[in-house]
Amino acid sequence: MKEFKVIEGGVCAAQGFRASGVYCGIKENPTKKNDIAMIVSDVVCNAAGVYTQNKVKGAPVVVTKKNLEKSGGKAKAVIVNSKNANTCNADGEEKADEMCRLTAEALGIKQEEVIVASTGVIGQVLPIEPIKAAVPELVKKLSYEGNVEAATAIMTTDTVKKEYAVEVTLGGKLCRIGGMAKGSGMIHPNMATTLNFITTDAAISSEMVKKALSEIVKVTYNCLSVDGDQSTNDTCVLMANGLAENPEITAEGADFDEFKAALYQVMANLTKMLAKDGEGATKLLTCVCSGAPDLDTAIIVAKSVIRSPLFKCAMFGSDANWGRILCAVGYAEADFDINKVAVDLSSRAGSIHVCENGAGVDFSEETAKTVLTEDEITISVDLNAGDVSATAWGCDLTYDYVKINGDYRS
Amino acid sequence: MKEFKVIEGGVCAAQGFRASGVYCGIKENPTKKNDIAMIVSDVVCNAAGVYTQNKVKGAPVVVTKKNLEKSGGKAKAVIVNSKNANTCNADGEEKADEMCRLTAEALGIKQEEVIVASTGVIGQVLPIEPIKAAVPELVKKLSYEGNVEAATAIMTTDTVKKEYAVEVTLGGKLCRIGGMAKGSGMIHPNMATTLNFITTDAAISSEMVKKALSEIVKVTYNCLSVDGDQSTNDTCVLMANGLAENPEITAEGADFDEFKAALYQVMANLTKMLAKDGEGATKLLTCVCSGAPDLDTAIIVAKSVIRSPLFKCAMFGSDANWGRILCAVGYAEADFDINKVAVDLSSRAGSIHVCENGAGVDFSEETAKTVLTEDEITISVDLNAGDVSATAWGCDLTYDYVKINGDYRS
Repeated sequence: MKEFKVIEGGVCAAQGFRASGVYCGIKENPTKKNDIAMIVSDVVCNAAGVYTQNKVKGAPVVVTKKNLEKSGGKAKAVIVNSKNANTCNADGEEKADEMCRLTAEALGIKQEEVIVASTGVIGQVLPIEPIKAAVPELVKKLSYEGNVEAATAIMTTDTVKKEYAVEVTLGGKLCRIGGMAKGSGMIHPNMATTLNFITTDAAISSEMVKKALSEIVKVTYNCLSVDGDQSTNDTCVLMANGLAENPEITAEGADFDEFKAALYQVMANLTKMLAKDGEGATKLLTCVCSGAPDLDTAIIVAKSVIRSPLFKCAMFGSDANWGRILCAVGYAEADFDINKVAVDLSSRAGSIHVCENGAGVDFSEETAKTVLTEDEITISVDLNAGDVSATAWGCDLTYDYVKINGDYRS
Repeated sequence: MKEFKVIEGGVCAAQGFRASGVYCGIKENPTKKNDIAMIVSDVVCNAAGVYTQNKVKGAPVVVTKKNLEKSGGKAKAVIVNSKNANTCNADGEEKADEMCRLTAEALGIKQEEVIVASTGVIGQVLPIEPIKAAVPELVKKLSYEGNVEAATAIMTTDTVKKEYAVEVTLGGKLCRIGGMAKGSGMIHPNMATTLNFITTDAAISSEMVKKALSEIVKVTYNCLSVDGDQSTNDTCVLMANGLAENPEITAEGADFDEFKAALYQVMANLTKMLAKDGEGATKLLTCVCSGAPDLDTAIIVAKSVIRSPLFKCAMFGSDANWGRILCAVGYAEADFDINKVAVDLSSRAGSIHVCENGAGVDFSEETAKTVLTEDEITISVDLNAGDVSATAWGCDLTYDYVKINGDYRS
C-alpha cells in the first residue's frame, strides 16, 4: 500500500485550521489538565460525521447530527469537552445546544456550523458555567499551532495524546489531512467510532466527504476493540475547508482514490494509537484476516479475535494459547470452512506457525515466548477461502484494565 | 414461581444412576485431582443433547451427536474427562470414538449408547493410554453415591463442584431430577452450554426430553456469561431412565409443565453456581430484564448487561456506575425505547433506584456502596414496554480473571 509523507501538526496540519485547549474545571482536578478544546476553520468546511449506533446517544451526538443536517453538511468550528459525557441527562440537549450557541456567538458564526462533542462519565449533569467561562479563553488562544493543547484536552483515561497527519497531492496541489482522537475504554465502535476529529485543506464536496469518511471508518475505527463496550458518544467528524485550492473532488476517480488512501493512513494510524493505549494495555494486537471470500467476513473474523477476553489475557501472559484464537474465529458470525484455517503469530522478534487446516502443528514454545514477549503482536488468520483481507486492532487485557475500571468515577 | 424440594445426590439423585471419578493423569498433576468421570444408568435412557454453535467443535461434540443420532435418542452411559478438550486435533474423533468403544466394552453396552465429553486446553493431542487404563477402574468404582467423585472430575478452573437436584411429583409418582456442571471460563453459551449432565428417573419420551431441554436451556445456561467467549466443547445432556414409573410423558400437558418447572430449578441453580464461580469472580451478578415486549428482547438485554466488561469491573469495585448499565442496554440488538428504561441495583443490604426514563436520578452514594459491597448483586432493568421478563447471570471482572488466563496452559 502507498505510504504518504507523515507531517507534524495533527488537527492543525491542514491550512486554515486553528485549535486551542484549556482547563475549565468541569470536574475538580488538582493537576488542572486541559478539559475543553476548540477547533476553528478560517473558512466554512464541507463536513460529515459518523456516530454511535448505541440506542443511548450522548446529547452532543444528537445535537451535532441536527446541526449538520440544518447546515446542509457545512461546519466551521468544533467544541469538545472531556470528564463528562453529557449523556443520560434530562437537560443534556439543552446544554449541548448552549455549548454551540456560546461558541457561535464568540466566533460570530451560525450556531448550526458548530460541531459539539463530549466524553467522560455517563449520567452526571454537565456543569455549563465553567464552559461558559472558558469559551472566550478558547477563542483567544486559538492558534495554527494549537493542536497539542486541543489533543490533550480530549484525553480521558488515555495515557498519550493521539495525533497524526499526512501530505497528499491532489490535482497537482499539495494538500494535508490530519486528525486527533481519544480512547481508551468503552471502545468497540460499530458503524461509528470514539471521538475523532479529522481536518483537511483539500477541496472536496460534502457528498464525497461523507462517502470517503464512511468507507474509511469501516476499515479503520470500526475494526478496533479495546473491551467490546460500544460507547454512547462515538463521533467521528471530517472537515474539509478547500484552502489547498485543488480542483474540487466531486465524484469518484483518481483524486478521490488518492484522498481516501491518505485518509486511510491517517485514520488507521490513529486507530493503532487508540488500540495501543487501550485501558491498561501493555501490547498492541493486530489481527490480519486474509483469504476471506469478502470484506465483511474478513472484518468479522479479525474483530472476533481481537475482542476475545481469553485471548487478550493470553497475550498479556505471552502465552501462545492459539486454541483461543481458533475458538474466537469459530464463533465469529460468518460463513467459511473452519477446517481450512491457518494461524501465525509474529512480532519483530520472529514468527511461529501454530495452526494448519484448523488443527494444531508443532512449534517451539521457546520461540513462541520470544515472539510474544514483544509489545506489538500480529495474528495472521488465513481462511483460505478467497483473496480479501482486513485488519483489526486491539490490545491485551491486564490487571490495570480492571484497576482503572473498578472505580472510574472517583 | 413454584419451588421444588432440593435434595442431595447431584447426578445420582435420580434412581438407577451410578457415577464414579478417578485421577488417570491426562496431564501431570501433583495433587492427583480426579480428571475422568463416568455416569451409568441401570436401564437405557431417552436422551437429548444441545451443543456449542461454535464452528470449532470439540471432537467429543461431533461424536456424541453422531451416537445419539445412531441410537435414536437412547443412551446408557457418559464418559467425560477434564484437562484436555480434545479439540482442533487431527485425531480427535478417532480418540473420542475410542473413549466410547472402551466404555461400551467395559459395560457390555452398545458404543452408540455412550455420550462422550471433554474439557480443558484446546489443541493438545489427547493421550488415550491413561484413559484406557482408567476405564476398568471407573467401572469398578461406579456407585449410587458416586456423584461427588464425578462432579469433581470435570472441574477445570472451577473452585467448587456444581451439583443440584430436586424432587418432583409426576402422575402421582415421586421423581427426581439432578445434575452436575463445570465452569468457569470461556463461558458464553449460545443455543448450547458448557458441560452439563442432567439425569432423571422420570419417564418421558425422547421427543419430550429434547423439547424440555431446549426450552429450559434457552432461559438458563444460554443466559449465562462469564467472559463472552463461547466454548468449543459446550455440551448439555439430559438422560431420563423412567425408573420412577410415572405414566410416560409423551405430549404437552400438566405433567410436562411440572417436569419443565423442576428442570428449570435444577438448571437455573447450576447456572447461578457457574456464574458465581466464574474465573476470578468475587460477585454473582443477576440481571433481571422486565417489562419487555417478548422473551428474546428480555434475554438479549439482560445478557448484554451481564457481558459488559466495563460494568463487570465497576461491580468488582462496588461502584454504582449505572451509566455503563445503560450503555450496555443501549447497544443490545433489540427494539425498544431507551427513554422508558428504569434501573435498580439491589442486594441483601438494600436497593437503590438509579435511573428513570433513561436518565439519572439522585441516589445516596453511601447506600450504593453498602448495597454493592455484597457478593450477590441484582440489576433490575425495566424496559416499560411489555410484561415479559428474563434473567441472565454473570460475575464481576477481577484481577484474578486476568491472572488465571494470563497463563492458563502452564
